[in-house]
Amino acid sequence: MPSIRVEMFEGRTVEHKRALAQALTETTMRVLGVGADAVDVMFFDIPRHDWASGGVLWSDKKPATPPGKP
Amino acid sequence: MPSIRVEMFEGRTVEHKRALAQALTETTMRVLGVGADAVDVMFFDIPRHDWASGGVLWSDKKPATPPGKP
Amino acid sequence: MPSIRVEMFEGRTVEHKRALAQALTETTMRVLGVGADAVDVMFFDIPRHDWASGGVLWSDKKPATPPGKP
Amino acid sequence: MPSIRVEMFEGRTVEHKRALAQALTETTMRVLGVGADAVDVMFFDIPRHDWASGGVLWSDKKPATPPGKP
Amino acid sequence: MPSIRVEMFEGRTVEHKRALAQALTETTMRVLGVGADAVDVMFFDIPRHDWASGGVLWSDKKPATPPGKP
Amino acid sequence: MPSIRVEMFEGRTVEHKRALAQALTETTMRVLGVGADAVDVMFFDIPRHDWASGGVLWSDKKPATPPGKP
Repeated sequence: MPSIRVEMFEGRTVEHKRALAQALTETTMRVLGVGADAVDVMFFDIPRHDWASGGVLWSDKKPATPPGKP
Repeated sequence: MPSIRVEMFEGRTVEHKRALAQALTETTMRVLGVGADAVDVMFFDIPRHDWASGGVLWSDKKPATPPGKP
Repeated sequence: MPSIRVEMFEGRTVEHKRALAQALTETTMRVLGVGADAVDVMFFDIPRHDWASGGVLWSDKKPATPPGKP
Repeated sequence: MPSIRVEMFEGRTVEHKRALAQALTETTMRVLGVGADAVDVMFFDIPRHDWASGGVLWSDKKPATPPGKP
Repeated sequence: MPSIRVEMFEGRTVEHKRALAQALTETTMRVLGVGADAVDVMFFDIPRHDWASGGVLWSDKKPATPPGKP
Repeated sequence: MPSIRVEMFEGRTVEHKRALAQALTETTMRVLGVGADAVDVMFFDIPRHDWASGGVLWSDKKPATPPGKP
């Protein structure tokens, strides 16, 4: 009866969620040896202004400079 | 101090939530012998494209054919 | 597909949980018009030293003096 | 690795969240002696019609009469 | 920054959890295109007497008769 | 009505939790301008073998070499 909850930044499409739900379910079935019907997956979209790491909202963080760029 | 969290498909009205909050609170008071003030209920609306069972998003599931219908 | 999570002080017996799971499920079926199979209930036992209200752990709170007692 | 989740009525601004994320992180660092990078904070906005205390939705509660007012 | 929470019946070994944490992380990296450092996984062991489906605690459910057995 | 949930590695003492509950509550009161009674704090002790970052359980991670040590 694993129940899997995924919190991630909002912006992922339904296609992303469809693929991720299927892949996480198959992974869980394979590793734990449970049937598909036993696995539930739930997604929670978190806005970047609702998640802070190190005390700073992600909506306030500067994007990292890509390597090779000034 | 029971705290009750209800996750359900989005689409229920405030009337549904009002009735369910009252009924779940009364049920908990009766079974556990606690006062009304001890019970908190919180609702979370989950879109069907954010909940998967058996690896398939509920927004992708075909509605079951009603019995007696082709 | 309502999923119900109940957090309460540890100490409730399995009999309490059995009765509460059944009653919360029946209440939800009645109010929302869903089938029994659609309802999941999960209990979480919270020690009193892990829950604070008003900044004070419940394990530190003085029991209220019953009415009529000094 | 403390992970802090704050559920509160919707309506707080990003400025409130920015200040609260920073303050909760600093408080946790000071009390537990952990580094800033170890602390995550996540906010969840709860509509008043999705939170009930004592069986009554907060959207249905009458505002308390301020002291000194009839 | 996906944060993945897995609730499952207690009884899985640390080996199961080690394998599942690694597999869920790799699956998430592959499907969402995020780095390993972005993925957190947390496990919660749920006793069978703390989880009910259809109003019945899993500790009370009769094991299904295997196919071909009386 | 902020409700604050803190997940952290198991091993913190009740003294740590008492101090953290009080400090988080005061911080929230100050930043949001709410009363003490409005703030609930709940702690969840997570074993290191139940939390993975980057796909590796924290119980499997090598302790970092302190600075200045080989």
